[in-house]
Amino acid sequence: MSVLVVGSTALDSIKTPKASHPRLLGGSASHAAVAASFFGPVRLVGVVGRDFPKRYLELYRRHGIDLAGLQIRDGQTFHWAGEYEVNMNRRRTLATELGVFETFSPELPAAYRPSPFVLLANIAPALQLHVLDQMRRPRFVAADTMDLWLNIAMKDLLRLLKRIDLLVLNDSEAHQLTQDDNVIHALARLHKLGPKYVIIKKGEHGSILGGPQGRFIAPAYPLSKVVDPTGAGDSFVGGLMGYLASARGSIDANLRRAMVYGSVTASFCCEGFGLKKTDTTTRADIEKRVKELAQLTKF
Amino acid sequence: MSVLVVGSTALDSIKTPKASHPRLLGGSASHAAVAASFFGPVRLVGVVGRDFPKRYLELYRRHGIDLAGLQIRDGQTFHWAGEYEVNMNRRRTLATELGVFETFSPELPAAYRPSPFVLLANIAPALQLHVLDQMRRPRFVAADTMDLWLNIAMKDLLRLLKRIDLLVLNDSEAHQLTQDDNVIHALARLHKLGPKYVIIKKGEHGSILGGPQGRFIAPAYPLSKVVDPTGAGDSFVGGLMGYLASARGSIDANLRRAMVYGSVTASFCCEGFGLKKTDTTTRADIEKRVKELAQLTKF
Repeated sequence: MSVLVVGSTALDSIKTPKASHPRLLGGSASHAAVAASFFGPVRLVGVVGRDFPKRYLELYRRHGIDLAGLQIRDGQTFHWAGEYEVNMNRRRTLATELGVFETFSPELPAAYRPSPFVLLANIAPALQLHVLDQMRRPRFVAADTMDLWLNIAMKDLLRLLKRIDLLVLNDSEAHQLTQDDNVIHALARLHKLGPKYVIIKKGEHGSILGGPQGRFIAPAYPLSKVVDPTGAGDSFVGGLMGYLASARGSIDANLRRAMVYGSVTASFCCEGFGLKKTDTTTRADIEKRVKELAQLTKF
Repeated sequence: MSVLVVGSTALDSIKTPKASHPRLLGGSASHAAVAASFFGPVRLVGVVGRDFPKRYLELYRRHGIDLAGLQIRDGQTFHWAGEYEVNMNRRRTLATELGVFETFSPELPAAYRPSPFVLLANIAPALQLHVLDQMRRPRFVAADTMDLWLNIAMKDLLRLLKRIDLLVLNDSEAHQLTQDDNVIHALARLHKLGPKYVIIKKGEHGSILGGPQGRFIAPAYPLSKVVDPTGAGDSFVGGLMGYLASARGSIDANLRRAMVYGSVTASFCCEGFGLKKTDTTTRADIEKRVKELAQLTKF
């Protein structure tokens, strides 16, 4: 089944202690859509400017991503520039140029409205809500968020939480939102805000799911080299939703494996700048690492 | 089979934002020995002063711990006082009074020398080496350490690493020792220093094993409440060694489960001040959490 992905589509200029890569394909929706595309059809909703390189449109298409919902507007594509420290655990933003993203309103083509699986990748909660207003009874809605929205759009975010099935956020955001450092308490508090399923991401330490079937501790695939972690979280939730949409059976029966697939898809993302490594990854590469992770955690 | 445990036997005065508990039973060997005692016979080597409360000797005995190697000397028992911050992730030392520990030399009763499993809990590497000098061809030797020894006794520690089978240390110590932030690289470098097996502990994020059979990602048991994490690392390696010594079959066949048992034993340690919770824990409690952890990580 199709996954509808809405979020940011951007150009990222990324510096690390060893390299500098200007204007890579980036944005939450780009990473999530390509990650989801390993498992089945994906529909993208986003906006880019006239400067958006053709090769990136081709990249989306090569991954079978439906671009009917991608607006191409007069103006510049959203551009983010950031720099990572030596151990890749901290980054600082060097520049944020919103361009056409500043006035973006996600409008769904008619064909997108019945999409059964909806991924509201990181973007302003008001825009995530606007997407839901246009949907026809989706089967499963997941949303990602970031600290920025906790700081400036909490009211919209709280409204959103009542309308989604799965919230995905990282541990620092979970602590900020719940005012509780303990992951078990944080999960309980987040469920009370609405979502039946909550996943707290812990980067290289994996992630933890809370849901009606109990908790699940998902491992991260251990990498010997992290080249660029930008988009890893988006790839995680993209891979997760792609797998869920492709799997037969109930959400409850598939969600654990979906997290493992998300984790593995994110591991490839970290091994190259922007989408470079993900772009050349195959489904067979993913299956191989999923098997490895099963072996790495078996006892 | 018996596990020989050598390390510190101390009185710990522990403050948290909510409580203050003076002169609890503490020390690396106390935590490790009680943790190992759930699985089989334990022999303790340590030193205490005349002030050491009788109730703590009774606690050791209640857990079937052989005290033939516990020296009782004129003077004060090693006393450590520390304070935890709100989230329990950081602690600071308020006082360290070495007492009889200052001149401690671990001397093994003749009956201890053929012990097949040896746990060199955290103590100066020179003393850990002195224990090995007295052993008769042990089957499996594990050693724990701490940042202090990396700072002041590196030469002894490097000598020790060539004589042990398993090194257990936490992630910050692994990074300090190898000068590498990446856990896969750190494992590889630590193996090169001697030990066939290396476990890097990551606190609430679990631990990772490197060994001839490959790596194993061990989960931590998720706790909704951490009362006092003092001794959790010692309980982990104590439970691990206790399980290993009790299990039939090869080290390689048992080490993964041993880590899970260690992890669960450590979870109980964190739920009470000092050894209070561990003391009232049963083997059945441990088995229950091991089953839960299997369920929490299955996919």
